[in-house]
Amino acid sequence: MKARSTSLRVRLPVFVFVTEVVIVALYAIFVTYDDHADAKFQTNQTNPLDNAMYRDYPFFTDIQVMIFLGFGCLLAFFRLYGFGGLVFNFLTATFAIQWAILVQGYFQFNYDGKIHLGVINLINAEFACAVVLISFGAVLGKTSPLQLLVMALLEVPVFAVTEWAVLKYLKINDAGGSILIHLFACYFGLGVTFVLYRPQLNEGHAKENTSYQSDILSVMGTLFLWVFWPSFNSALTLKGDDQHRAILHTFIGLSASTLTAFALSAMLNKKGKLTMADVQNVTLAGGVTVGATVDMMISPAAAYALGMMGCMACMLGYKYLSPFLAQRLRIQDQCGIHNLHGLTGLISCAAGICAILMASEEVYGPSLYEIFSHRAPVEGDPKLLELQMLVPNLQPGLGRTAHEQALFQVAAIFSTIGVSALGGVLTGFVLKLSCLAPPSDDFCFDDELFFDVPLDYDSPTSNSITTEDSAA
Amino acid sequence: MKARSTSLRVRLPVFVFVTEVVIVALYAIFVTYDDHADAKFQTNQTNPLDNAMYRDYPFFTDIQVMIFLGFGCLLAFFRLYGFGGLVFNFLTATFAIQWAILVQGYFQFNYDGKIHLGVINLINAEFACAVVLISFGAVLGKTSPLQLLVMALLEVPVFAVTEWAVLKYLKINDAGGSILIHLFACYFGLGVTFVLYRPQLNEGHAKENTSYQSDILSVMGTLFLWVFWPSFNSALTLKGDDQHRAILHTFIGLSASTLTAFALSAMLNKKGKLTMADVQNVTLAGGVTVGATVDMMISPAAAYALGMMGCMACMLGYKYLSPFLAQRLRIQDQCGIHNLHGLTGLISCAAGICAILMASEEVYGPSLYEIFSHRAPVEGDPKLLELQMLVPNLQPGLGRTAHEQALFQVAAIFSTIGVSALGGVLTGFVLKLSCLAPPSDDFCFDDELFFDVPLDYDSPTSNSITTEDSAA
Amino acid sequence: MKARSTSLRVRLPVFVFVTEVVIVALYAIFVTYDDHADAKFQTNQTNPLDNAMYRDYPFFTDIQVMIFLGFGCLLAFFRLYGFGGLVFNFLTATFAIQWAILVQGYFQFNYDGKIHLGVINLINAEFACAVVLISFGAVLGKTSPLQLLVMALLEVPVFAVTEWAVLKYLKINDAGGSILIHLFACYFGLGVTFVLYRPQLNEGHAKENTSYQSDILSVMGTLFLWVFWPSFNSALTLKGDDQHRAILHTFIGLSASTLTAFALSAMLNKKGKLTMADVQNVTLAGGVTVGATVDMMISPAAAYALGMMGCMACMLGYKYLSPFLAQRLRIQDQCGIHNLHGLTGLISCAAGICAILMASEEVYGPSLYEIFSHRAPVEGDPKLLELQMLVPNLQPGLGRTAHEQALFQVAAIFSTIGVSALGGVLTGFVLKLSCLAPPSDDFCFDDELFFDVPLDYDSPTSNSITTEDSAA
Repeated sequence: MKARSTSLRVRLPVFVFVTEVVIVALYAIFVTYDDHADAKFQTNQTNPLDNAMYRDYPFFTDIQVMIFLGFGCLLAFFRLYGFGGLVFNFLTATFAIQWAILVQGYFQFNYDGKIHLGVINLINAEFACAVVLISFGAVLGKTSPLQLLVMALLEVPVFAVTEWAVLKYLKINDAGGSILIHLFACYFGLGVTFVLYRPQLNEGHAKENTSYQSDILSVMGTLFLWVFWPSFNSALTLKGDDQHRAILHTFIGLSASTLTAFALSAMLNKKGKLTMADVQNVTLAGGVTVGATVDMMISPAAAYALGMMGCMACMLGYKYLSPFLAQRLRIQDQCGIHNLHGLTGLISCAAGICAILMASEEVYGPSLYEIFSHRAPVEGDPKLLELQMLVPNLQPGLGRTAHEQALFQVAAIFSTIGVSALGGVLTGFVLKLSCLAPPSDDFCFDDELFFDVPLDYDSPTSNSITTEDSAA
Repeated sequence: MKARSTSLRVRLPVFVFVTEVVIVALYAIFVTYDDHADAKFQTNQTNPLDNAMYRDYPFFTDIQVMIFLGFGCLLAFFRLYGFGGLVFNFLTATFAIQWAILVQGYFQFNYDGKIHLGVINLINAEFACAVVLISFGAVLGKTSPLQLLVMALLEVPVFAVTEWAVLKYLKINDAGGSILIHLFACYFGLGVTFVLYRPQLNEGHAKENTSYQSDILSVMGTLFLWVFWPSFNSALTLKGDDQHRAILHTFIGLSASTLTAFALSAMLNKKGKLTMADVQNVTLAGGVTVGATVDMMISPAAAYALGMMGCMACMLGYKYLSPFLAQRLRIQDQCGIHNLHGLTGLISCAAGICAILMASEEVYGPSLYEIFSHRAPVEGDPKLLELQMLVPNLQPGLGRTAHEQALFQVAAIFSTIGVSALGGVLTGFVLKLSCLAPPSDDFCFDDELFFDVPLDYDSPTSNSITTEDSAA
Repeated sequence: MKARSTSLRVRLPVFVFVTEVVIVALYAIFVTYDDHADAKFQTNQTNPLDNAMYRDYPFFTDIQVMIFLGFGCLLAFFRLYGFGGLVFNFLTATFAIQWAILVQGYFQFNYDGKIHLGVINLINAEFACAVVLISFGAVLGKTSPLQLLVMALLEVPVFAVTEWAVLKYLKINDAGGSILIHLFACYFGLGVTFVLYRPQLNEGHAKENTSYQSDILSVMGTLFLWVFWPSFNSALTLKGDDQHRAILHTFIGLSASTLTAFALSAMLNKKGKLTMADVQNVTLAGGVTVGATVDMMISPAAAYALGMMGCMACMLGYKYLSPFLAQRLRIQDQCGIHNLHGLTGLISCAAGICAILMASEEVYGPSLYEIFSHRAPVEGDPKLLELQMLVPNLQPGLGRTAHEQALFQVAAIFSTIGVSALGGVLTGFVLKLSCLAPPSDDFCFDDELFFDVPLDYDSPTSNSITTEDSAA
């Protein structure tokens, strides 16, 4: 790859200002307040404290911390790419959210020809943003900020369409987003990185390593994600006991995977020491693994077991699968998203299907038809009226059997993987455009390329150590 | 400036213990619990879960994070002044809050001869504290902890009186505190730094720079502020849809200003790279700019546009106005608070006046007279009774027209700027007292002066780099 | 101490997998959902938004941040032991919580032969976890992760039994956990460290020092604890005004102790400078000191005075008592938990007893018998019926006088100290087993022993400085 200018001086402002003008125009034309945020809709019957915002906002702030501080610090683990990890995450997230508000709004919050905006849209948009940031993990350190913005520009609509189509036509249960968030993000990211393959990086890179401080910063990111993950998995469940269970299962799953990750980290290390990359990533596997069943009555023990299983799959993936993918399949998955989101997502989906097949009225009571809303009897079925005595506000469903629901879940898994991988590959081709200022191989994982760095950013000390090390 | 002792051994304890004794005496005499915190006021009609604390406390914890971690980390951006930024912020904030509880309590929460204390007072006191911390930004690195405490001691009463007088006599709309928080803090800080002018610092200072780690820490501070800013801007709005809109507008304004800041940062950099100082500061401009209109029906697009405009003004201020102020007007604004709080505050006020002039019953419905409470009909007006059918609990107002309200806003802006600048100048003269241990020019931006520092705080490495650099 | 293998390759996985299998089996057999998390218990009378989770979860997330980020960063203050502080805290906390869910569940949430799990159990388990982490502070840097896990394994049951016995039989008031959390944790930790005495460490250790970055990280931990401490102290109080007061008192106590800590730090330093260790630890003393009285009507001024007193005791403890304990009583209290939790806890208990003796119906109204529930009249007393008119849901009590209640508090203090110290000593003997891989004296406070460290973790620079310093 020959040296090309990577100056952002013209292209970044051009991209940003054009998209901003488009976005603000679309906001002006299409976006209005939802009923809970519009002054005109408040009547003398309205109790201000019943505003939907009070139910959603605490979950929103928790997710904000995860997106901006959690992901940001976690991605800042490279020695010379701390600015890149933290700051490109900030930029990409901000853009993805404002764009997702429009695109998801068009598909999901659109009536009377307007997108109706409330805190609930922001939560949905932050989920779309999480998808982009997970995919970002696959190409961390190898992409310019402009490439990341273009990736967000393309990934958000593909995600929003998939989400809308799967929820509208396949009608699946996926409270924690195992299919729509984790699998989608993972295979999209792998598609992108497959196209952006850089053969030279398979031979190692002098800057592809951590420092003492960057490792600590990254663990802080892990802890922000860990601490608030129950809010992430429960933000969009039904209120009440469903949301309560989602919190419990996520916490238990994370606990189990954290403990397991430490054991495996020591076990798979030749000197019997702990590896910080495992602490930073594998501990989180349980949060993904409980995703698909997070609101179901799976029992605390099952959440624990899922956390352990997800962690083992994730750890073995890092150890054996990632090198294989990079060497043989041209898939350089920088942060190992296939381990943390793909493998665990698949386990989660499998567990979700089992839980669906085993769900019975005996365990759930009549709430069964709320949680598995598509199994509720169809309009007109006398059983529906009977159930509506027990569960006020129960909506008529599709009368699906457990088996039918399970098949739709399978269909959703495969179609999501297919669409996302394809979308990722196509996006990858767009990202190869040289006007997007991709860094040369030498300047991967290096903040100097896109930042005015302070004098000490790569101190002689670290250099000399590196040199000694290479010499040794 | 000749060498003087800056030991805190006697003067800091003397100041602290004297103020503590005074404060605890005043608390003992004047401060009691408010009705929601007093056991005696709970009756058999009281539902404990209706306690006002449950409405206020979530916003309070968010603001706590902003004050102590957000401001603290943001101010720790100097290479050798990380302790100073983080720790003096901690000290000053703690003192300002406990002092503001008394002073604001005297003006705002005082009945039956007692100050009534609840979580709502703490929120108000943290706003007063935010004012002090913003002003602190103007003199960061050039002041002793004792000077900062004295500044808080003087600024809090000036602020509390201004706040009380403006709200009581001018009766303005300023939900996000654009006038009372941002403009006041900015011009007070500029007044102080004008008096504390240090000509030598205009020629640059060897320690006035960042390190890789301090830049990252400072970005974390920015992110804490960014993530919780919607809580800051909405904490004191009316409950319900007003608070909901405040959250939405703040989020959208911040998103727009963040994206714009990245574009401008690259555009104004000769090498087309991103500058960390911009990421740390300019991204936040949108949060201030939406302040004055944050609870109004301005539309999401207007919040977006305000975010962009505020960001541009802020960025141009950093680039062109700050150097001019320092060189020509003797105003050394260390963190550029005039850009982040002054210029954006003025734009916000202008937007607020436009929004007030354009507000109509068509858009707001009868809630218009809740949000613009001074436009509500006066006691006895038949229109009031009519409105009270639609809006229960509507209070009689002053029957102001939009135009009158706008004029009062203008009056508030000018009087706030006048009072704060004057207060700042007078405070500056007090801070010049040599018994307050101001650092000499050489020891500005240097933790060694007031802290027992670890051995590596200024490692030879960094020194040698600095030297090489100056030589080059 | 001769060199022994400290590889975790076999022993850590063995310990973890055995305990995980036991835990998951016990979860499967004994743990089910509580009524608010169980789908079957939702009826057509249930309002989902009345779910207990909505009352508890905001406090739970705040405590999560304290446990994982607050404690974690605070304990990462050693120059070469940042990984250890942050990561062993993560490991130990995760294990302690999942284990405490079972043990506390058996004693406190057990009916129909099942442990009923809800968010409230998680809060209780995080308190048990806080106990373990405080004790960890006494042996920080001198223990292997396996020793810490075994300590948690043993401490949690001793704590749970003590907690259960004291609450069930002595029936004390201890909303903020001064006795059961702080005193228990402190004396257990001192017991452990007494047995693990390392004479060589009394002569100083080359790695027992901080770096600029580790000091900053540790202050961030302090700030996380500071900011959310009101949630910690109020999480388990009665809802309503009690919880409101708990928040106010904790905030005021912390403010007072922070300001005092700065004054004392400068005063006790020969050069009149601030010491970071004081900022990191002594500022927090007020949070502990208000613990026992946190929900009582002690007045804001008393909370302020308690904060000051706790801070003074804590500071003098660090200065004079800790060296004495280490030199004369073989008690090497690494983080000074005896100062921050022991001395302050004792002051808090004394204040609690005073507050109990002074509590009157005049001040509290009939709520007196809710807060001091054991002073409520016994079943059948006509006074009870009278009170139940005023306080719906008032439970019959034991008809204790204030004096009797005070004696039970004293009994609880002494029995808790006795049990915890004994438990700590016995645990210490178990931890001496060499199969638990205790680090040799040389490798105390050193991440290299248990982590794959990055190349720069102990850079030549820092070494050379240290050497120069020793030479000087």
